[in-house]
Amino acid sequence: MASDWATFGADLHLELRGTRLRAGLMDALREAVRSGRLAPGTRLPSSRSLAADLGLARNTVADAYAELVAEGWLTARQGSGTRVARRTAPRPPAAAPPPPPSAGSVRRRPATPVHNLNSGTPDLASFPRADWLKAYRRALTDAPNEAFGYGDPRGRPELRTALAEYLARARGVHARPERIVICAGFVHGLMLIGQVLRARGVRDVAVESYGLDLHDGLLRRAGLGTPVLGFDEGGTRTGELAGLDGCGAVLMTAAHQYPLGGALPPDRRAEVVDWARASGGLVLEDDYDGEFRYDRRSVGALQGLDPERVAYLGTASKSLAPGLRLAWMVLPGDLAVEVAEAKGAVGWSSSTPDQLAFAEFLRSGAYDRHVRASRLRYRRRRDQLVAAVAAHSPETRVSGIAAGLHAVLALPPGTEQATLRAAAWRGLAVQGVNGFRRPTVPPTLDGLVVGYATPPDSGWQGALGALCGVLP
Amino acid sequence: MASDWATFGADLHLELRGTRLRAGLMDALREAVRSGRLAPGTRLPSSRSLAADLGLARNTVADAYAELVAEGWLTARQGSGTRVARRTAPRPPAAAPPPPPSAGSVRRRPATPVHNLNSGTPDLASFPRADWLKAYRRALTDAPNEAFGYGDPRGRPELRTALAEYLARARGVHARPERIVICAGFVHGLMLIGQVLRARGVRDVAVESYGLDLHDGLLRRAGLGTPVLGFDEGGTRTGELAGLDGCGAVLMTAAHQYPLGGALPPDRRAEVVDWARASGGLVLEDDYDGEFRYDRRSVGALQGLDPERVAYLGTASKSLAPGLRLAWMVLPGDLAVEVAEAKGAVGWSSSTPDQLAFAEFLRSGAYDRHVRASRLRYRRRRDQLVAAVAAHSPETRVSGIAAGLHAVLALPPGTEQATLRAAAWRGLAVQGVNGFRRPTVPPTLDGLVVGYATPPDSGWQGALGALCGVLP
Repeated sequence: MASDWATFGADLHLELRGTRLRAGLMDALREAVRSGRLAPGTRLPSSRSLAADLGLARNTVADAYAELVAEGWLTARQGSGTRVARRTAPRPPAAAPPPPPSAGSVRRRPATPVHNLNSGTPDLASFPRADWLKAYRRALTDAPNEAFGYGDPRGRPELRTALAEYLARARGVHARPERIVICAGFVHGLMLIGQVLRARGVRDVAVESYGLDLHDGLLRRAGLGTPVLGFDEGGTRTGELAGLDGCGAVLMTAAHQYPLGGALPPDRRAEVVDWARASGGLVLEDDYDGEFRYDRRSVGALQGLDPERVAYLGTASKSLAPGLRLAWMVLPGDLAVEVAEAKGAVGWSSSTPDQLAFAEFLRSGAYDRHVRASRLRYRRRRDQLVAAVAAHSPETRVSGIAAGLHAVLALPPGTEQATLRAAAWRGLAVQGVNGFRRPTVPPTLDGLVVGYATPPDSGWQGALGALCGVLP
Repeated sequence: MASDWATFGADLHLELRGTRLRAGLMDALREAVRSGRLAPGTRLPSSRSLAADLGLARNTVADAYAELVAEGWLTARQGSGTRVARRTAPRPPAAAPPPPPSAGSVRRRPATPVHNLNSGTPDLASFPRADWLKAYRRALTDAPNEAFGYGDPRGRPELRTALAEYLARARGVHARPERIVICAGFVHGLMLIGQVLRARGVRDVAVESYGLDLHDGLLRRAGLGTPVLGFDEGGTRTGELAGLDGCGAVLMTAAHQYPLGGALPPDRRAEVVDWARASGGLVLEDDYDGEFRYDRRSVGALQGLDPERVAYLGTASKSLAPGLRLAWMVLPGDLAVEVAEAKGAVGWSSSTPDQLAFAEFLRSGAYDRHVRASRLRYRRRRDQLVAAVAAHSPETRVSGIAAGLHAVLALPPGTEQATLRAAAWRGLAVQGVNGFRRPTVPPTLDGLVVGYATPPDSGWQGALGALCGVLP
């Protein structure tokens, strides 16, 4: 029993990082009872000794026991201690399936990472809980009854109105509420647009040399080909679009290439829009981190150049939190109608209270305040990253630092894999540039993609130190 | 100008039903400025006269003006009145597209309905705002930071744990958290299962004679055939499954046929599960309103008979509100893995704060309380419906009344269309049985599907009166 408990305690300890110690302990105990690992009648260790094993306060354990007794999972009797209740719950079905891979598991490194510099997520600890709750409370109080119904597939008009004003002001997007469709993340929006383009007879959607496999795969599952545009020191070679027969659209991260980090130069911005005009094609603008530009005014959205030829996609996943599953598209008129129809056909919307809360969050200025504060924090981290790299590894060039939540650290040719292994060995989760390279693109760059926004403030210096430790 | 304002006031008035008069007025004014209907420099009527035109309190208009001045839409100067600001906002693109059809528009009747007895929606006015907000606040306060990230495609473990306990207790479902996948509505769940079944090589999914086109269409878009099972006085003819070659699954509303309202008799419940066991097929159980049974204990879920052969789908759309977009599947082990993978591949999840709030709502007993209170209210309405029909139209048989949120009123053969037209003429939105009949099923029934849960309490007696007025 002692060794079982030690294992259990050790397992548990990993799960208990974070804030909800008692709830985490209760979940772990429930799970142990449910799975049969703790059989009915089993006597549990005293709260004092379990607390000592797990490194918890005794009250945390005692409270957890008391609540589980109240819930009927455990029984407590004078002189007999705390035991697993003999329940008459329905027998669980026989075999447990292996847990499915989690969305994040592809990024996981062999050793359990202690430091997380994977890109793509803001600092989750900085989510503005109090302000969000205030907006949610006000939205829920003010909501008309019909807001709790199925609603318009484009999303709540209050949110589309608030976004139209925000996007015009902050990103130079020509947005009107009726051109906006709310979606549950960039990927949802891309899936809907991909479906509509395919239904219109589009054969191919061009993609950049570096990007997320997920996006590419999504387009291919929609039945679209994904020819790859070349890449040079000026960024994505938009001139190649003219040579791609049958290409009806191009997916671009124009303001801040993901993951390499450059802004598309003005002549190429014009070139891609000119291509769309001349060919009747469409530019899909993935403006995933447009709010974060540090050294000068942000680069306006490409969409401002031609709202009839650019579909703009933005998201709250980087500026606020991915868990909210709130994103938006600003679409040419005909596409807005078709995308809304495609969305309505499968009844997939974001929750209306959330949409109303986000509208209130935008209207009240809380979003602007949060973005401003985040921009200052992330700029400070970026400056610290640049300074630390200069001090520890003066040969290492840092690029893509003018904007966004990540930077690229160039590595000597052929050393990326070894560096990633060294990082994993130190418990540092970080990605390599080549993990984003399309399979047909020859490997010419080696580097690390450093998501400096990811760790909480408390973990930032440690992560930075671990990073410097693996640089040449 | 005067006549313009009268029109504007009249238009606006329609939009202003509901609770948020000031916000509605502000939206309407913003839209008028944005669209150019109110040109820059235009002087607005005084708050007193606009209030009189619109039938609003003067303060409502004055406050709206003041906020729009603060937002920069309007300017106010002593002696010059309130005017539309001369803005330097980006010019909106040229032509406005026609608004896309809303999800609900297919149900709309020629005249604007005053009374709504369409089925499929609970009384939205009874959404428990205060209790939900309490759960949301607690969930947001207690949430670990990682809850704001992308997360497990199956959904938050807290919610899956709470649902497993609830479903076992309330619906006799053999549920374990790892077999549960949270989805954003029944349709989302059905879409995911359809994709997985198709990928497994399943050719056909059988459907009932009466049901929603939306579900049928979704399966067909996933590449599946949808053979139709016959229907008799005992309900869906489950015996026909054995004769359907290549049929890998069947979609059933076993506890309360939608929309005809019967419970599948015990021998047919056994028959459908036996078919699934013998053929290796799968039963998709659409338990859309299982919480609402009035005259005896609820019929347990079919899933309890064989958790390895029945995929259970439940939803908060009828018990709480469709706007939350929260639903769940309890799946056989291998299917749970594949469905979670399909869901993760497109990154479509419900917001994690909402999931945590719903978990708290379940755990705290608020859900049980809300369901109990709703059950009492809807049973009272059902009794009033039965009594009113007996008094006004003694020949009309009312069926499907033991459970759910709707009943079926049989009509004399051939009179359904005329009755629906008479209802529309009286401003009563209600559906006919034949609107749910699969195209290949011969028309043998005429009747009205009466969603007696839909109107708010204030609208119920009026709706009931309008209904009685169109009965024979």
